[in-house]
Amino acid sequence: MSTSQANQNRFRADLREMKFLLFDQFRLGELLEKAPFEAWGVDEVAMTLDQTYKFCCDVLGPINAVGDRQGCKLENGKVITPEGFKEAYAQIYEAGVKGVGVDPEYGGQGAPQVLTILVEELICGANPAFVMYPGLARGVAEVIHIFGTARQKALYLNALYSGKWGGTMCLTEPHAGSDVGSARTSARHIEGNRYKIKGTKIFITGGDQDITENIIHLVLARIDNGPPGTKGLSLFIVPKVRTNEDGSLDKPNDVFVSAIEHKMGINGSATCVLNFGQENDDCIGELVGDVEHAGMAQMFKLMNGARILVGVQGVGVASTAYLNALEYARERLQGPSINHWKDPMAPRVAIIEHADVRRMLLEMKAKVEGIRALAIKLAWHSDMVHILKGKDDQAAQYHQGQVDLLVPLVKSYASDQAFRVCELAIQTYGGAGFTKDYPVEQSCRDAKIFSIYEGTNHIQAMDLVGRKLPQRGGQNLQEFLGDVGNFIQQHKNHPTLGACVAELAAAHEAVSGTAMRLLMWFQSGRMQMVPLAANRFLEMMSVLSVGWLLLQGAVIAGEKEAALPAEGSGPDRAFYKGKHHAAVYFAKHILPEVKSHADVLGREDRSALDIPNDAFATV
Amino acid sequence: MSTSQANQNRFRADLREMKFLLFDQFRLGELLEKAPFEAWGVDEVAMTLDQTYKFCCDVLGPINAVGDRQGCKLENGKVITPEGFKEAYAQIYEAGVKGVGVDPEYGGQGAPQVLTILVEELICGANPAFVMYPGLARGVAEVIHIFGTARQKALYLNALYSGKWGGTMCLTEPHAGSDVGSARTSARHIEGNRYKIKGTKIFITGGDQDITENIIHLVLARIDNGPPGTKGLSLFIVPKVRTNEDGSLDKPNDVFVSAIEHKMGINGSATCVLNFGQENDDCIGELVGDVEHAGMAQMFKLMNGARILVGVQGVGVASTAYLNALEYARERLQGPSINHWKDPMAPRVAIIEHADVRRMLLEMKAKVEGIRALAIKLAWHSDMVHILKGKDDQAAQYHQGQVDLLVPLVKSYASDQAFRVCELAIQTYGGAGFTKDYPVEQSCRDAKIFSIYEGTNHIQAMDLVGRKLPQRGGQNLQEFLGDVGNFIQQHKNHPTLGACVAELAAAHEAVSGTAMRLLMWFQSGRMQMVPLAANRFLEMMSVLSVGWLLLQGAVIAGEKEAALPAEGSGPDRAFYKGKHHAAVYFAKHILPEVKSHADVLGREDRSALDIPNDAFATV
Repeated sequence: MSTSQANQNRFRADLREMKFLLFDQFRLGELLEKAPFEAWGVDEVAMTLDQTYKFCCDVLGPINAVGDRQGCKLENGKVITPEGFKEAYAQIYEAGVKGVGVDPEYGGQGAPQVLTILVEELICGANPAFVMYPGLARGVAEVIHIFGTARQKALYLNALYSGKWGGTMCLTEPHAGSDVGSARTSARHIEGNRYKIKGTKIFITGGDQDITENIIHLVLARIDNGPPGTKGLSLFIVPKVRTNEDGSLDKPNDVFVSAIEHKMGINGSATCVLNFGQENDDCIGELVGDVEHAGMAQMFKLMNGARILVGVQGVGVASTAYLNALEYARERLQGPSINHWKDPMAPRVAIIEHADVRRMLLEMKAKVEGIRALAIKLAWHSDMVHILKGKDDQAAQYHQGQVDLLVPLVKSYASDQAFRVCELAIQTYGGAGFTKDYPVEQSCRDAKIFSIYEGTNHIQAMDLVGRKLPQRGGQNLQEFLGDVGNFIQQHKNHPTLGACVAELAAAHEAVSGTAMRLLMWFQSGRMQMVPLAANRFLEMMSVLSVGWLLLQGAVIAGEKEAALPAEGSGPDRAFYKGKHHAAVYFAKHILPEVKSHADVLGREDRSALDIPNDAFATV
Repeated sequence: MSTSQANQNRFRADLREMKFLLFDQFRLGELLEKAPFEAWGVDEVAMTLDQTYKFCCDVLGPINAVGDRQGCKLENGKVITPEGFKEAYAQIYEAGVKGVGVDPEYGGQGAPQVLTILVEELICGANPAFVMYPGLARGVAEVIHIFGTARQKALYLNALYSGKWGGTMCLTEPHAGSDVGSARTSARHIEGNRYKIKGTKIFITGGDQDITENIIHLVLARIDNGPPGTKGLSLFIVPKVRTNEDGSLDKPNDVFVSAIEHKMGINGSATCVLNFGQENDDCIGELVGDVEHAGMAQMFKLMNGARILVGVQGVGVASTAYLNALEYARERLQGPSINHWKDPMAPRVAIIEHADVRRMLLEMKAKVEGIRALAIKLAWHSDMVHILKGKDDQAAQYHQGQVDLLVPLVKSYASDQAFRVCELAIQTYGGAGFTKDYPVEQSCRDAKIFSIYEGTNHIQAMDLVGRKLPQRGGQNLQEFLGDVGNFIQQHKNHPTLGACVAELAAAHEAVSGTAMRLLMWFQSGRMQMVPLAANRFLEMMSVLSVGWLLLQGAVIAGEKEAALPAEGSGPDRAFYKGKHHAAVYFAKHILPEVKSHADVLGREDRSALDIPNDAFATV
């Protein structure tokens, strides 16, 4: 079974597809002409992708299974990460991979989000457990970057951006998961912006590790006598080792790891229970910036980026699972062609020849590429905000509105579908997929956390219907639907894709109608229906978005294909045909679900609310 | 996090629900009056369920996580099973659990299938890895029981039925998975019905273990110069240790374990690579019965039962995952009631109060109970065949037709949905569900194999559309649709369920229409469309069946509830209300998918066939 283990477990990505999205579909060339991205050219972008992919194949991919099998260990109160993680951490900074999107002021390359997001997809796909360590360091840096005092920036940013120190986000407590506002960790004022922190935080990714000499914890805590709920939470910088003003290390802080979780997946990522000030009541933290009770808003700034990254993690893991299943389907011989299915002497064919395998492959391809396009679209709007802010604030607001609207879609739909794509990848392998000889069972286990962390997918759905739809008087959604509507108008008579555009139009109408229904529930005091419908509505909008972007890509691919020379363009032609068929498959198989979802919500069934608690079971 | 580990990891089942299905919905009392089941009464059936559940909680449940964490080891060519498995194996036979459905001639209790299937659900749910060992011993015994010579029955059956010896089914080879007919394992005639066996088999469950003194392998092999394909395969009894005519053990056979698989789940079940006659060319097997080239038909007899059991395994695992998630939802406090969601001082409530948690719980409940009803219906038809055969052969044929039709549905839909139910169970727990402190992540990993082994779910779907639909000139499906149609006619004006019966009618029409479409494809030579549509059609039929049986149960529960005394019937009333709401939820949320699936198939999209092989990706 394990002839060529290295090849079987290889990280795989399709750079041609990424470059098509960037350069052809999202016309990155136009964006790069504008400040603050003028330093970047199309060639630099392509080269960055190529180099990152090479780095992922050489460094991160090979320790993905290692990290899973070894997991993290807690010995004498210290976390030991899997073999190779410490070395890879050094290398990812040396290679400049983590600096692609960082502000040049702190040694970064200031790349646009559309590129950064693909760089992140590559490293997440190659090793979703490993990337948590540098990812959190980056996240902590960004919070301090935006909200910190000048002293805090000087003290922490270079160390965090350069990989010298790690970072964590400490929100969850044993009794306070989704209900962050009930956190009990306390902060007692000492002097200046220094506080004594006391409390227990759980599910802290990278809460300890043996990779960096220091770890900067960002801890949500309630200043004594602060207001209840989320409004009373403040954010504190709590270093594992106290730091002197020159950046050198002082004595250890009163922060201890009391346990690590044993998990279904992402085993190379240490998930810790952290005790702050519980041993000696001597845990010193400093307020981020100088405003008390602003912790949730600060954390949310980080959460937005973190949620996008979870979606991207989903795309990365799903993509390599798909491409590995594809490779297996091309190599594995099994059964005769359907044209000779009654002839036992007929030659065996690669399983990619079998209709059901093709169906699974095409479904995976359509979802992976469509969700990737959605993530890039989100990043593109984000880049447009940067370009337009202060120049054309109205246009910038439109783009920011689309960012806000799409974040919960990317986080939730990508994470839910990553799990489904991995499920299909396992099924494509058959029994082999269930074994650890092949990478897809690990991908599936790893992917399960994506629908939970950084806000469960229901939290995302409530964010969408409760906050993002009403934003700007509903304008975000109207503009989104307007954009889709324009595409429909423009292409409804497309010679080869017209029927698919009609599917898109039906989905568009279903989303509009359901949005009106949600509004009616809000206005008529039937609030309780909203959470029942939220996940389904999020899925409807996601499917509509993905269907739209796939069809947009297919239109462009069709034009490109028509312009190819008749001879010698085989691989290009195949690529464009692939874009076409993936869009058609999605339009005809998945888009119709949107209408079906709308019909279900139209039934306004309350059974989940009406069932008495003791009627669920008699045990 | 791990305060009450034992309670957190407890196996759970809802016996009240099982008894409702048996006694109220499927009227077991009527069936028990008839031969060959006259020895059984309603009380004996209930007591058997109670005792089996106690056994599962006491013996099998506690070693479920142990088996997962320890897994099986291969040391010096011998498999070592997890702690406690050997003892549990002895106990399951001592307690009579495995003998419930066995022929009294061989020490069993001859129970009807409807009971046996629930006994199997309980033990599968309590420990899906462990049950593979006694399950395969039972399967091997049944093949020999039906096809073996008198001498073979005398020699093997008591040892297999009593738990003294284990058994395996050896079909798959490295190059021959779903394509069983390409097996290369050979059998050279020696004398009488003795043959020399040579070949390698993979994915052999229980291929070795340290539990029983001997293992009886059933090996598919091709007798030298036999015809190619499945028609040339014969089935052989190949004992691990050769046996003397008095049942005592002779010297070891030439059968060796060369490796065991490391898997995503069911780690307590040893999955072996077995070499037959590869070391000393001295592996002796005997033909099952005395007919050559009949191996596939013999194996299929076993496969049918095995496929039903995989479905039942799915129900068992999904059921305990649901009930554990329910228990957690009742205990875990998080967030305020939606009625006070803006008040940070509002009391925290158990998460079962939150609408989205209720939605997940009700979806799990509806699926688990609906699929259980489908499995029982299949078993009930099977029991009716036994009762009617030789007395009313026409009626027996109807029941056998329903058995044949429902096997692929139970195997596939139960296995696919078990994985989805476990996914929802994890989501209900949130982050805790991703950890090994709680049982649901293991259930999810274990459940993934169910869609693959005993014939992948696509093999099942092709069995349904290619073999079962055309059987008896299409009469199986017509009679099935007729039964559903009668229910619709009878209850379409039901005062509280009429709207749900209308949903059932729409699904019924969609299935009929799609069956006609499949027939048209067959008749018009568009065979290639069939495998593209098969899985979806299987799901349509499954959802229709489950929706029907849930509504049937709800009608009965409504009558029972109406007959309750006004006072003192709280738990009964709650139970019946639960049946009602689960049926309504399924009818309004899941049944509409059937129509949507039919519409998708009506589009007759060929994109998965038309996409060129090299267009899937450029890597």
